[in-house]
Amino acid sequence: MRAVDIIQKKREGKELTPEEITFMVRGYSEGNVPDYQVAAWAMAIYFQGMSAKETAQLTLEMAKSGDQIDLSPIAGVKVDKHSTGGVGDKTTLILAPMVAAAGVPVAKMSGRGLGHTGGTIDKLEAIAGYQVELPRETFIKQVNEIGVSLIGQSGNITPADKKLYALRDVTATVESIPLIASSVMSKKIAAGADAIVLDVKTGSGAFMKTLDDSIALAQAMVDIGTEVGRDTVAIISDMDQPLGHLIGNGLEVEEAIATLHGKGPEDLHELSMILGSHMVVLGKQATTTEEAREILEKTIADGSAFERLKQLVEAQGGDVAMVEDTAKLPHAAKRIEVLAENDGYVSSIEAESIGIAAMLLGAGRETKESVIDLAVGLDLRKKVADEVKKGDVLAILHVNDESRVEESKQRIIQAYQLSAEPVEEKPLVYAIVTKDGVQRFV
Amino acid sequence: MRAVDIIQKKREGKELTPEEITFMVRGYSEGNVPDYQVAAWAMAIYFQGMSAKETAQLTLEMAKSGDQIDLSPIAGVKVDKHSTGGVGDKTTLILAPMVAAAGVPVAKMSGRGLGHTGGTIDKLEAIAGYQVELPRETFIKQVNEIGVSLIGQSGNITPADKKLYALRDVTATVESIPLIASSVMSKKIAAGADAIVLDVKTGSGAFMKTLDDSIALAQAMVDIGTEVGRDTVAIISDMDQPLGHLIGNGLEVEEAIATLHGKGPEDLHELSMILGSHMVVLGKQATTTEEAREILEKTIADGSAFERLKQLVEAQGGDVAMVEDTAKLPHAAKRIEVLAENDGYVSSIEAESIGIAAMLLGAGRETKESVIDLAVGLDLRKKVADEVKKGDVLAILHVNDESRVEESKQRIIQAYQLSAEPVEEKPLVYAIVTKDGVQRFV
Repeated sequence: MRAVDIIQKKREGKELTPEEITFMVRGYSEGNVPDYQVAAWAMAIYFQGMSAKETAQLTLEMAKSGDQIDLSPIAGVKVDKHSTGGVGDKTTLILAPMVAAAGVPVAKMSGRGLGHTGGTIDKLEAIAGYQVELPRETFIKQVNEIGVSLIGQSGNITPADKKLYALRDVTATVESIPLIASSVMSKKIAAGADAIVLDVKTGSGAFMKTLDDSIALAQAMVDIGTEVGRDTVAIISDMDQPLGHLIGNGLEVEEAIATLHGKGPEDLHELSMILGSHMVVLGKQATTTEEAREILEKTIADGSAFERLKQLVEAQGGDVAMVEDTAKLPHAAKRIEVLAENDGYVSSIEAESIGIAAMLLGAGRETKESVIDLAVGLDLRKKVADEVKKGDVLAILHVNDESRVEESKQRIIQAYQLSAEPVEEKPLVYAIVTKDGVQRFV
Repeated sequence: MRAVDIIQKKREGKELTPEEITFMVRGYSEGNVPDYQVAAWAMAIYFQGMSAKETAQLTLEMAKSGDQIDLSPIAGVKVDKHSTGGVGDKTTLILAPMVAAAGVPVAKMSGRGLGHTGGTIDKLEAIAGYQVELPRETFIKQVNEIGVSLIGQSGNITPADKKLYALRDVTATVESIPLIASSVMSKKIAAGADAIVLDVKTGSGAFMKTLDDSIALAQAMVDIGTEVGRDTVAIISDMDQPLGHLIGNGLEVEEAIATLHGKGPEDLHELSMILGSHMVVLGKQATTTEEAREILEKTIADGSAFERLKQLVEAQGGDVAMVEDTAKLPHAAKRIEVLAENDGYVSSIEAESIGIAAMLLGAGRETKESVIDLAVGLDLRKKVADEVKKGDVLAILHVNDESRVEESKQRIIQAYQLSAEPVEEKPLVYAIVTKDGVQRFV
């Protein structure tokens, strides 16, 4: 087998055999296939695509390239959840305890934030003492005891994906649906998931800007799940504005806790219920999403979801007092208002600009080496469809270091798109993709 | 400027600026743009193509990457000729002295053969003593004195093209018309050509298998010539059978000399006249190809073309006696006949198989390191449209080393396609492409 023949076959639009895909991925991992051949191959994939079979094989091969977490010592169906990346998205902090309270074991590894997007692990560190690294056995023991653990990615998970992603990043081959889909799914499979709920963001603030592209990506990931025997459901959700009101690590913990108390913003509550109900169905604790939702609403109403968060924080060494009284979470020294410069109705809020505005205050990392400030961030006072008068407060900055406040303010003002006419609220979920097909709501 | 942005721009089908192309080519040459980015870029070019302007810029940049031969000390228009590679193609040996005899200076660098194709420089070495390497000043002085010199490529001509070609070879990006066209033209421009006549082979034995592809390649090269101010004409000629009867280095010199005596095979004579008459017109020694052809036929009839060959050989230290009496050229020890196994009419002769058959006898190089035998080769006794009876001699092998004779014979028998019905002769030239357009003959 020769890499050049495999590249040519893909270039000609032919389907590669599993052996050919293994040859390329393993060869690249092990240093036997050079990066220039993989770069040409990736570009050929960009143009010619991959079948569901090819994409599944690529996924499995990357999943097998490093550590594979064995979650079989945990009873039940282990359901993982993944978001393609949004701003203000703190659903994992809500879903993990809530779904666990509904009887589905959650043994989840999450990431850190980079650029304009936040990461669950950074947010958890706003709770003093919370240990994001646990030995494998402790992690599994905790899930068996309290039904939930949330840790950072450790060990050597999907090194082939990391290597391939780094190459794609510098060869303009990131934007390929089979390559994106296999990258996401390989990590979930290596992390031991039996079933997966995907939150595919769509809109100006998302990686996929159009609904059709978002559905195509969702379909590719669901197809992989079907091919490799992991039940997968994808929710296509709105990212034409950030989720909820609060952005920043400590602030997002605060808003997640409010939501677990039944007092969160409507969009955040609703999306958590939709994602959670699919997790509960995949986890075999309900047969329909309607039934699952009833169970989940009950975990909020009776306080069991919040109780589970406290257990999680306590088990991982965090300061439970901060969870019981969010005033004890880290808070910034100063609040600075951002005022509207015009009248109108909010038609969209560029999530990426908002993410950057938060990053400029220190809530996110500009580079991998940046140190983040867990207390700072934004409170968005106006959301899509709200009426705005000149001088109204659009957002409140939570600031410690004032050096980039002006830049941050400008980003926020630019992010708010105002319309002269009243604006209808956007749907929160545009479509759901399962192995049985696509259900569109718009 | 960043390579990744340039790759993406080409991936999206946009036209690159001259500066962007220069950035990539020079960066690659100088080691600032890594091979994996160039590989992805080449694959994007494979899919998205390049405009005439982009291709011309790529050509110029590669031409400038190494030595550029200055032929200005030679008076007159220096016309170069290039063939995309055929079997039995010894036209350069005929054209150089003939066109020189018609008053067009020929200062030509040629290559060696590899695989199933021969090279002019190997053929010339069949003439004992012929020096294929001359100092630059001697080369130019000789053209000024006798109007012609034929030497091997020396120095550091188009290193960027060599580097890019080696990368394309292992990344399945060879078959891209703008990349092929710029590779050919960059070498001609670096070699100092004022005008260029291209012989683009088409058919089963050619790099371009279909007439449309051959015309597209010819068009791309003519467009480059137009963009960079070098008058370029491309002849699309047949390669559904080898050219002439003799294949092998000494044998091809013999057939070229016969043609200069007016006693060569009809196809070889005709193609030499067509290519030569365009060279004479581009060299301003005639205003029409008809007029040019009259001049050239006269150089054959009056012996001046042959005389010029003798002067060339003498000037470069070759044994003129071998040219005067071709019996003195190297000849193989043994002749072995290849007999027809069936009746029929020859419909085509797979040129690539014939080239391999000759290579197996030692006439060509299997690898760059192979040593070739200048005496061996093939004499094709049947050509397209000839009637064949079982037991007729298809070809005669000229053999020294008999170890691979059987394999060679099999290749020849397989190369001959026989038809039950009489076959019409194929046209020798299918089309001519100039800056004014395409003239098709079929």
